[in-house]
Amino acid sequence: MDVAKAVDAAPKGSVEALVALAAPDMVGVDGLIGDRLDSPVPVIPALAQHLIAAGGKRLRPLLTVAAARMAGAKDDACLKLAAAVEFIHTATLLHDDVVDGSQLRRGKVAAHLIWGGASSVLVGDFLFARAFELMVETGSMRALAILAKASSVIAEGEVLQLTRAHDLNLDQHTYLEIIAAKTAELFAASAEAGAVSAGCAEEQVSALRAYGLNLGLAFQLVDDALDYSGAAETLGKNAGDDFREGKATLPLLLAIARSGPREAAFWERAIGRLDQTEADFRRARELILGTGALQATLDLAGDYAEAAKASLRLFPDSEWRASLESLADFAVTRPA
Amino acid sequence: MDVAKAVDAAPKGSVEALVALAAPDMVGVDGLIGDRLDSPVPVIPALAQHLIAAGGKRLRPLLTVAAARMAGAKDDACLKLAAAVEFIHTATLLHDDVVDGSQLRRGKVAAHLIWGGASSVLVGDFLFARAFELMVETGSMRALAILAKASSVIAEGEVLQLTRAHDLNLDQHTYLEIIAAKTAELFAASAEAGAVSAGCAEEQVSALRAYGLNLGLAFQLVDDALDYSGAAETLGKNAGDDFREGKATLPLLLAIARSGPREAAFWERAIGRLDQTEADFRRARELILGTGALQATLDLAGDYAEAAKASLRLFPDSEWRASLESLADFAVTRPA
Repeated sequence: MDVAKAVDAAPKGSVEALVALAAPDMVGVDGLIGDRLDSPVPVIPALAQHLIAAGGKRLRPLLTVAAARMAGAKDDACLKLAAAVEFIHTATLLHDDVVDGSQLRRGKVAAHLIWGGASSVLVGDFLFARAFELMVETGSMRALAILAKASSVIAEGEVLQLTRAHDLNLDQHTYLEIIAAKTAELFAASAEAGAVSAGCAEEQVSALRAYGLNLGLAFQLVDDALDYSGAAETLGKNAGDDFREGKATLPLLLAIARSGPREAAFWERAIGRLDQTEADFRRARELILGTGALQATLDLAGDYAEAAKASLRLFPDSEWRASLESLADFAVTRPA
Repeated sequence: MDVAKAVDAAPKGSVEALVALAAPDMVGVDGLIGDRLDSPVPVIPALAQHLIAAGGKRLRPLLTVAAARMAGAKDDACLKLAAAVEFIHTATLLHDDVVDGSQLRRGKVAAHLIWGGASSVLVGDFLFARAFELMVETGSMRALAILAKASSVIAEGEVLQLTRAHDLNLDQHTYLEIIAAKTAELFAASAEAGAVSAGCAEEQVSALRAYGLNLGLAFQLVDDALDYSGAAETLGKNAGDDFREGKATLPLLLAIARSGPREAAFWERAIGRLDQTEADFRRARELILGTGALQATLDLAGDYAEAAKASLRLFPDSEWRASLESLADFAVTRPA
């Protein structure tokens, strides 16, 4: 079963419409990113560019720009906030890859394997600081508050995940708390900061924050599902990585809860003690598919995507709104 | 030769007067620190408290408070900035110890050896974010600008040091650039932010920044000297650490430059290739003392301490000013 088939019922979404609408603004964002990661210390732009130039969909800065423009922003404050958001995201990726010992990121060798873990940690710190310098330039204390808070919530989520990493008894509620903090919070803050920079009414600010949060949850759940159904080439990382690291993601947790006492020893060995053989990933995958755990994860992602779209109803019909709706559909229908 | 004897000519300074004057304010700062490192994720306060409660002299928050009070600050905005400064400092220490693989910090086992490198990296990120949340609460965009800039300069300095770590040909100018960035910048920003929070005139803001910068340079130079003359118990880390890590500090660089071609093979092996025997530290120490490299380092530190004191002349005589002058003397006369 592949994910695209599993969600056949959902409307096909795409990120293309948003990318096209935001293209002129994203030229400005990319310019700021290039400018602000410059440094007299050559390893800093080299390491940062390795990751940033590898692409990625730039979803978070796109959200900032889209939220601001949909809400009628005329000035370019949202561009600096969008660049800041991408810097924060890049900093967390650099630190995550060191923390997780990841081999690949965006289809390329992870930066810490080229420049060392020390450089990755320090360049992450540099990008984080530069993000705050960009925010200061906008003069928006409220955007600073939103993104500073998001940054501490992300770190809390990461630490929580780390301490519960191999916990077979992690419940769904705590799992959702973790991904809300480590992933969805930055989506939420990116959209919220864009709304604030446009001078939105409070109701609209809340709606755009809700859109980002629900979108982020949908994306993370589908990412977790793709680890058990995707192919390495399109995913940009190795399928099965979460399993091999013993990461307690929802498809795994649901399968453990549903697969009964006969499989308990298998899960305890493979995830609890990380004592795995070559055949274990295939067996885990079969259980995750056979117990309906994969489908349940995708259904939940679908619910969040619908909630994201619903929060946009506050805004009048527009190309921007349609593109954000399509992005929410894309979160759950994107191919492995 | 110990450092205290080497600088016998300098006036004996102390940190006591400043600590006593700032005591009521520091109760508030410590309260904020305790409050703001709280988290529902228990490992975060546990790890952070391990380091923060181990003491240290709290020099940077003391500078923020002293700068503000000397300049006549009546409100308590400086307390939040002081707590923010301590959080930034703690974050950099956590990351440094991971990057350097240090064993000890403030006389205790380094946090990453207890909780792991991953937690140290992420708790550092958390503290950094919380620092910005505290700054946002003060409403001072200028203080935010100063400390965001300082944070990116620190990271740049750390990366520069990393890339030049075993470089025997590092010149004095570049070495001073590195310590200005990685150490003195936060001293400068701490004092500057305090001045700004007091609504100082520009001339006074600049003078307090200069005080912090020169003080930070003096402290770092003496730290580097102590690594070749201090005792582990009072230093809070292992004497000889810099040598064993092959860190190109000024005493070493000057000794290399002065010890001539006969010793070149020794330096190349012990520092360039980090191929060391037990006896090497003793030999390096003898060369550093014998060539006058240690004394030259301490003399330079003395010059910076004098420059720090000179920049305070702008302010009328007061207990605060006297305590900051005494701190500058302490920087160069403190015992190993």
